[in-house]
Amino acid sequence: MSPSRIRIVKRTPLKRVSVIGLGLMGGSLALALRRAGLASHIVGCGRQVLVERAMEMSAIDSGCQDVCEAASAGDYVFLCTPVETSIVLMKQIAPHLREGAVLTDVGSTKETFAAAAREIFGAQAAERVLPGHPLAGRELSGLEHASADLYDDCVWVLTPLSAGTAKNGANDAAQLPPAQQALVSALQTIKARVVFSTPQEHDRTLAYTSHLPQMLSTALSLALAEAFAADDPALQIHAGGLRTMLRLAASEPKMWEQIAASNQPNISAALERMEATLKALRESLGQPEFRAKFEQAREFAKFIKG
Amino acid sequence: MSPSRIRIVKRTPLKRVSVIGLGLMGGSLALALRRAGLASHIVGCGRQVLVERAMEMSAIDSGCQDVCEAASAGDYVFLCTPVETSIVLMKQIAPHLREGAVLTDVGSTKETFAAAAREIFGAQAAERVLPGHPLAGRELSGLEHASADLYDDCVWVLTPLSAGTAKNGANDAAQLPPAQQALVSALQTIKARVVFSTPQEHDRTLAYTSHLPQMLSTALSLALAEAFAADDPALQIHAGGLRTMLRLAASEPKMWEQIAASNQPNISAALERMEATLKALRESLGQPEFRAKFEQAREFAKFIKG
Repeated sequence: MSPSRIRIVKRTPLKRVSVIGLGLMGGSLALALRRAGLASHIVGCGRQVLVERAMEMSAIDSGCQDVCEAASAGDYVFLCTPVETSIVLMKQIAPHLREGAVLTDVGSTKETFAAAAREIFGAQAAERVLPGHPLAGRELSGLEHASADLYDDCVWVLTPLSAGTAKNGANDAAQLPPAQQALVSALQTIKARVVFSTPQEHDRTLAYTSHLPQMLSTALSLALAEAFAADDPALQIHAGGLRTMLRLAASEPKMWEQIAASNQPNISAALERMEATLKALRESLGQPEFRAKFEQAREFAKFIKG
Repeated sequence: MSPSRIRIVKRTPLKRVSVIGLGLMGGSLALALRRAGLASHIVGCGRQVLVERAMEMSAIDSGCQDVCEAASAGDYVFLCTPVETSIVLMKQIAPHLREGAVLTDVGSTKETFAAAAREIFGAQAAERVLPGHPLAGRELSGLEHASADLYDDCVWVLTPLSAGTAKNGANDAAQLPPAQQALVSALQTIKARVVFSTPQEHDRTLAYTSHLPQMLSTALSLALAEAFAADDPALQIHAGGLRTMLRLAASEPKMWEQIAASNQPNISAALERMEATLKALRESLGQPEFRAKFEQAREFAKFIKG
């Protein structure tokens, strides 16, 4: 076996890949798989104009508008649409998947998607579907912002549907079916940091570590809009801290509408806790506890950074 | 008159400068004035170890521990200590100021400082004191982080104590006494963007544009600390958005204790509004208003960025 032969075998473990949804996530995924030489053929599915653009970018080898046609072409099928759309599409494409094909997604919440997968695929769900969520990209969206390095060093959560492969923190890829192990390896090859979790733990955690920060940024912007006219010259009295805290508020409303709908109880609970925390901080103003709270917050923030 | 003579006159309008407090703000100010050649002599006042370090850094020409001695040496006296400390020091140094000297500060709130200045200097307050607040530096503190470019492009608010020079947005430096006009010019020379405001408007605005963002970051960290143990492996499921929103939580607790104490009613009002905004956002989850709120927040955030 020649070295070049070995190289080809190692770099194309996913064979034919279908990417359904050619936005920031799907476009970047196609580009990253392409850069890493991980697919023998990439089919893109999306609106005509996006297919054409993705072909021009050499992100995909061929394209179509029909999700079922796209799904039937892949050994690995990536649903790269917002979470509620992905659930609808999963139902449509399920009968068209190849024997042995692995279906995955990039949706921001996992419980509703996992429940839909179990309903659609029954006892085969754990074998056919490996739900995923790369924590990458937020304020910018669309194929025009796609990049082969979007997933470099990003946390890519996988929530296997089988019992026993879902302990968070442990990379127990060895317990997955071989075709799913190849997916894990491919994600690591495009430089993602794969982390295992359960759909439940994922959604509860994300409510705090992603959805709550987003809601805070959005609510801060709303509170400012209520307190000041947009053209109030007083607003020039602001520094980098405000711009930092408003960065997420620029995120795509449509995507967040779907995230909020699919993780409502967890987000609601996180927001309620946050309201209580803010109230307690307000009541501590001028009291000795204020300093103690500030120091506790500072310690915890350092831990997240490290 | 030779060109070098003109150059010296233009570049040293502040003559002898006293910098009281050799932390991030005072150290950076001394370095910036030095770099711009704006002072004939800079006296630094602080603990012995800081004076020695500032001398080594060539930030100051001489130093002392006695605030009254330092104050009596300057044509311009900068109080670069936290706001409550600056009020205490202003009372101590007032009898020792030179005839015609201008006293200014860098404190984060202005109403209590302005009120103290009026109490101490009476009818002379507007002539003797020009309260200031450069919106620069936050999470890092101490002389070891001082830098000559800390104030590059930062908003430096001045809140003149005379009626008629306090219209925010209008740079009406021409209405200030000549010695204060020289201060404005010096701040612009060290690349600060000078903005005029009233102490009242400054403090109300800062409560929203600086203190509220800080409280939100701190409260987010506290809410996370309540919901997760610091070593919970689930916390690795986070992305850049969380780190962004926790950046301010690393700020200095002592400084914020003083800011909170000196602007408590405004901060309290901003926090109450924020709690109500969060509650309304939570109640809109899954409702059509959610999308509308998100879009409104996005528009407003764009305005602040621009």
